[in-house]
Amino acid sequence: MKNFIFQNPTKLVFGKGEIARLSELLPDNVNLMITYGGGSVTKNGVYDQVKSALKGRNYIEFWGIEPNPHVETLRKAIQRGKEHHINYLLAVGGGSVLDGTKLIAAGIVADEDAWDIVLSGAAEEQIPFASVMTVPATGSEMNGAAVITKAETQEKYGFGGDYPQFSILDPEVTYSLSDHQIACGLADAYTHVLEQYLTTPGQSRIMDRWAEGVLLSVMEIAPKIKTNSRDYDLMADYMLAATLALNDFIRMGITQDWATHQIGHELTALHGITHGHSLAIVMPGLLRVLKKQKHAKLLQYGERVFGIMDGSEEERVDKAIAMTEEFYRSLGLTTRLSEEGIGNKTIETIARRFNERNVAYGENRNVTGDVTREILKSCS
Amino acid sequence: MKNFIFQNPTKLVFGKGEIARLSELLPDNVNLMITYGGGSVTKNGVYDQVKSALKGRNYIEFWGIEPNPHVETLRKAIQRGKEHHINYLLAVGGGSVLDGTKLIAAGIVADEDAWDIVLSGAAEEQIPFASVMTVPATGSEMNGAAVITKAETQEKYGFGGDYPQFSILDPEVTYSLSDHQIACGLADAYTHVLEQYLTTPGQSRIMDRWAEGVLLSVMEIAPKIKTNSRDYDLMADYMLAATLALNDFIRMGITQDWATHQIGHELTALHGITHGHSLAIVMPGLLRVLKKQKHAKLLQYGERVFGIMDGSEEERVDKAIAMTEEFYRSLGLTTRLSEEGIGNKTIETIARRFNERNVAYGENRNVTGDVTREILKSCS
Repeated sequence: MKNFIFQNPTKLVFGKGEIARLSELLPDNVNLMITYGGGSVTKNGVYDQVKSALKGRNYIEFWGIEPNPHVETLRKAIQRGKEHHINYLLAVGGGSVLDGTKLIAAGIVADEDAWDIVLSGAAEEQIPFASVMTVPATGSEMNGAAVITKAETQEKYGFGGDYPQFSILDPEVTYSLSDHQIACGLADAYTHVLEQYLTTPGQSRIMDRWAEGVLLSVMEIAPKIKTNSRDYDLMADYMLAATLALNDFIRMGITQDWATHQIGHELTALHGITHGHSLAIVMPGLLRVLKKQKHAKLLQYGERVFGIMDGSEEERVDKAIAMTEEFYRSLGLTTRLSEEGIGNKTIETIARRFNERNVAYGENRNVTGDVTREILKSCS
Repeated sequence: MKNFIFQNPTKLVFGKGEIARLSELLPDNVNLMITYGGGSVTKNGVYDQVKSALKGRNYIEFWGIEPNPHVETLRKAIQRGKEHHINYLLAVGGGSVLDGTKLIAAGIVADEDAWDIVLSGAAEEQIPFASVMTVPATGSEMNGAAVITKAETQEKYGFGGDYPQFSILDPEVTYSLSDHQIACGLADAYTHVLEQYLTTPGQSRIMDRWAEGVLLSVMEIAPKIKTNSRDYDLMADYMLAATLALNDFIRMGITQDWATHQIGHELTALHGITHGHSLAIVMPGLLRVLKKQKHAKLLQYGERVFGIMDGSEEERVDKAIAMTEEFYRSLGLTTRLSEEGIGNKTIETIARRFNERNVAYGENRNVTGDVTREILKSCS
């Protein structure tokens, strides 16, 4: 096990009706700005619940943070926040609204342009922020990361910083999600775990077991949700799984991969593919290309998650990868670039970008632009 | 899943050599008191590491917090702390030293007697405290609970309060633990999980999987540690397991039991049996008596942790309970009261105490004094 430092201070407030606690969770006398997405919260009742919970409080609202939040939009929110001396932010929406809010929280107290904060990789300072999370997927509600898109140049990068002060998760707000949103959310959560699990073998028995525990849970609930996305306990398991998949709990003392995310971000930036969907396309290809490096972990994954016990080691590894792709497809997602009309031009663009940035992703820092080309060809 | 609020702010600093970080983790200019146990840290090198890490800092030391820390000892530490205007505590030792320190942290800012704080069940206020944990067992290094003994009356109760600011866990400091300490530590961690797992079925798939993950890991490492308690990765898994078994991570949205702990505390208070050992005696008896109530969870536990797939449901439940007792025995611990020379008189004393206090423990609040008598008779 590697040495590690773990600290996750976010207060998780989980369960039906908990949005009503908003006012007691927020400090008194803060200059509050509430951030929203495109308006789905006005249809599913969340906006009314928030307004009702904050009756008697003063705050301003910022609307219009889009999926894969654009720095161009967030600059306007930062400007607005500076003008109103905002010192506390509340994101109401999905991972994109919260990710965008994390950048607003940094931009309000910074002199530099918001995109420079993203490019620096880490926010030096942020005003406190919290969330009412409505889309289980990214884990942003209990972690210190955010991913921002620059629409002008079709670039998408992540940066790190503070954790939310609190996040309210009411599974009932997920009842209005579309099938595609749920499919992408489940794919996102599942892939977050694989990025932290399918790496170096033998680092921590408990981290392995906990990663497998999230995978097994997501696999078990996914088909059930398809026929009953208004089953409270089912949606509670889904919501909690998405949070626990990316809140640092399953990565103590272990190496991590994240190459699939880096490649997926490019597909989203260039073609607008939903984040979770982009991962479902890239992950199986990455596993096919890196199966020798990930051999031991793929064997363990096949046995413990899919129950693959028969055949040669290579056959079992291949089967584990095939079943991973099959799982993504079972969610209703495509898993090949050709199915999305993406061809060689995009593959070469991404390979060139990675080579120009001289990056090397993955747990062994060997996923270069050239290896990425190979991975994307395997996803064609 | 039940509604829940989760927040665990402790910074976990894990790995070899991390004690050297002490000074950077402690705030500047605090009036620090370091608390110790009986002196084993002077033999295993931990005391020297702490002294070296804090070179140039001012602090006072308090020595002599015993196993199952006595309020009589802690009152002296509180007095000393008040005299020196102590505003930060660092516990260096096992769970008992840290539990005692949690009470000192409360007593220093309280007017009432320390035992009244314990009896109140919760500390109203505490000065900040941190730990260098040397004995993986209680999980005290990352939770807000402490258990204190009043030697005068042979009573032992828990109370709740703040979490440690940080805890340093260096697996290398466990190399000097005795076989009995390790056995009791493993039994403690294992039982902590069972108290949160063998309760109401179907509450959370992920919490079930994570509980099983800790159980499987502890079962896997226990026999290996017997022959190699200086294997770093093995001891790191053990140390992390003890922390994750009782830091609230595996009890989100679920009911809990804790009757075994309440009964075990009585055995410790009356006969001085090591805490983890007391649990190994009580838990199998409790499961035998409450096996109907815990039927569904015992079946799942048998299947997923012990691989019990054959036989009638009742046979599988009985086998799971028998294998639990066998696991405790495999650690080198006795599991029967008679083996410790404890007879009917103690059983009646505990039953009477529980009846007088009118308690009802367990996830269904039905473990009264009379049920406790039945449980203890089953452990005879």
